[in-house]
Amino acid sequence: MTDQPQGAVKTRLYVESPLAEGQSVGLDHERAHFLRHVLRLDRGDAVAVFNGRDGEWRAVIDGFGKGWCSLTVAQQRRVQSAAPDLWLLFAPLKKGRIDFVAEKATEMGVSRLWPVFTRRTDPNRVNSDRLRANAIEAAEQCERLSVPELVEPLPLARALADWPADRRLFLCAEAGNARPIAEAMRETGPCPAALLIGPEGGFDQSELDELGKLPFVVPVGLGPRILRADTAVVAALACWQSLSGDWTADGGDTRPPFRSPTEPTV
Amino acid sequence: MTDQPQGAVKTRLYVESPLAEGQSVGLDHERAHFLRHVLRLDRGDAVAVFNGRDGEWRAVIDGFGKGWCSLTVAQQRRVQSAAPDLWLLFAPLKKGRIDFVAEKATEMGVSRLWPVFTRRTDPNRVNSDRLRANAIEAAEQCERLSVPELVEPLPLARALADWPADRRLFLCAEAGNARPIAEAMRETGPCPAALLIGPEGGFDQSELDELGKLPFVVPVGLGPRILRADTAVVAALACWQSLSGDWTADGGDTRPPFRSPTEPTV
Repeated sequence: MTDQPQGAVKTRLYVESPLAEGQSVGLDHERAHFLRHVLRLDRGDAVAVFNGRDGEWRAVIDGFGKGWCSLTVAQQRRVQSAAPDLWLLFAPLKKGRIDFVAEKATEMGVSRLWPVFTRRTDPNRVNSDRLRANAIEAAEQCERLSVPELVEPLPLARALADWPADRRLFLCAEAGNARPIAEAMRETGPCPAALLIGPEGGFDQSELDELGKLPFVVPVGLGPRILRADTAVVAALACWQSLSGDWTADGGDTRPPFRSPTEPTV
Repeated sequence: MTDQPQGAVKTRLYVESPLAEGQSVGLDHERAHFLRHVLRLDRGDAVAVFNGRDGEWRAVIDGFGKGWCSLTVAQQRRVQSAAPDLWLLFAPLKKGRIDFVAEKATEMGVSRLWPVFTRRTDPNRVNSDRLRANAIEAAEQCERLSVPELVEPLPLARALADWPADRRLFLCAEAGNARPIAEAMRETGPCPAALLIGPEGGFDQSELDELGKLPFVVPVGLGPRILRADTAVVAALACWQSLSGDWTADGGDTRPPFRSPTEPTV
């Protein structure tokens, strides 16, 4: 057992298993390797685990085997809290930029990540496993209690075909009529929301025209510069979170858990 | 001369020279190579140039030599407009992440980029040439008419020693007392502003305490998740631009110039 104060945890892991006191949790080869050979943890060391349903728990390493690690769940550290109801629809970008979108959108608290193909979308497929791995890693790192739901990629028109009537879709449009984002979001107020970010080449004009006719679409402008798609993702999510999301509340619950220098979580 | 409509430009370049009709502009080896061998431009082709003072101009390639290219400035395309007065003070990050900060902060419209060393800042030096090259590239790409001023890196305390009394410094604090960012920025209103983003490991508690005592410092919170420093840069800048900066205005001037698919600017 490495030298650490009682209660301190050496990392945070997302798991699928149910979490409750005394529950056993098995980790796969990759996680076991990470704990043993990267973090150099041993039997008796503690990690934090969360599964998106049962809050965050301290769990203690029982032992390692060839390609596995088992943990026993001990005390609860945080109770599950509701996450904002915020979807991100985005045109897939090339590798590197799409990794970034998954990481940043997760940090920014989206509940659903949804790749959609627009007319000028360059990549015509998405590596969903890679997207999910990036989202999980970001959730572990940023102290989220959940991982965004990853929805099957679809052509934009199909994604919008069964759109829920009460959910506003903020269209981040680099051309055409659009109101300043803060003004439009303030007027809309808190509600189930989604943001739509186009591809690097922008939306097609006909696409913007069609989108503008949909009753749930609110075109918004992100200022006078042309933002890269990955920049627009973070920027638009920041506007929503700060005006209508979980960045609006004062108080202890809304501040990140304090991470002391002696208790790294990564 | 490649086949392009009159007036169309094939790329956008930042130059140091004064710009006015008939003026000659020389490009260095790297730019000349880029125009000739990457974009495959030739004598008579047009590019757009800007220098941060004289607006944006169409310029025509006169010819290439060994390691140079000369242009003649033709018509003005856009007049110079005022940029927001917004500084970004940030703790240097490792390569990759700091490139990202330079790119994103430029797209987000900062007027001054200022690396500052905090107690837990990991890299102890900054490659200013690289930072500047990233900022220039982003300015060319995002249709800005200027490049952020790059200030000599300093320890945080020294950067704050001669702070202008009328400039608010929004401290993006992951711990301690801080008001929700939108609320704090709305109350402060439009004014000369600066944002301070700490290092990956966060500020030291004593550092936060000292910062909190300075009359121009406004601590702000960015929600319940721990954001990476590079995420916090884009998010905090988006809040300021959308509430107090140049994303607030309606109207033609505040929409990006339309970039048609047949007129790529990169």
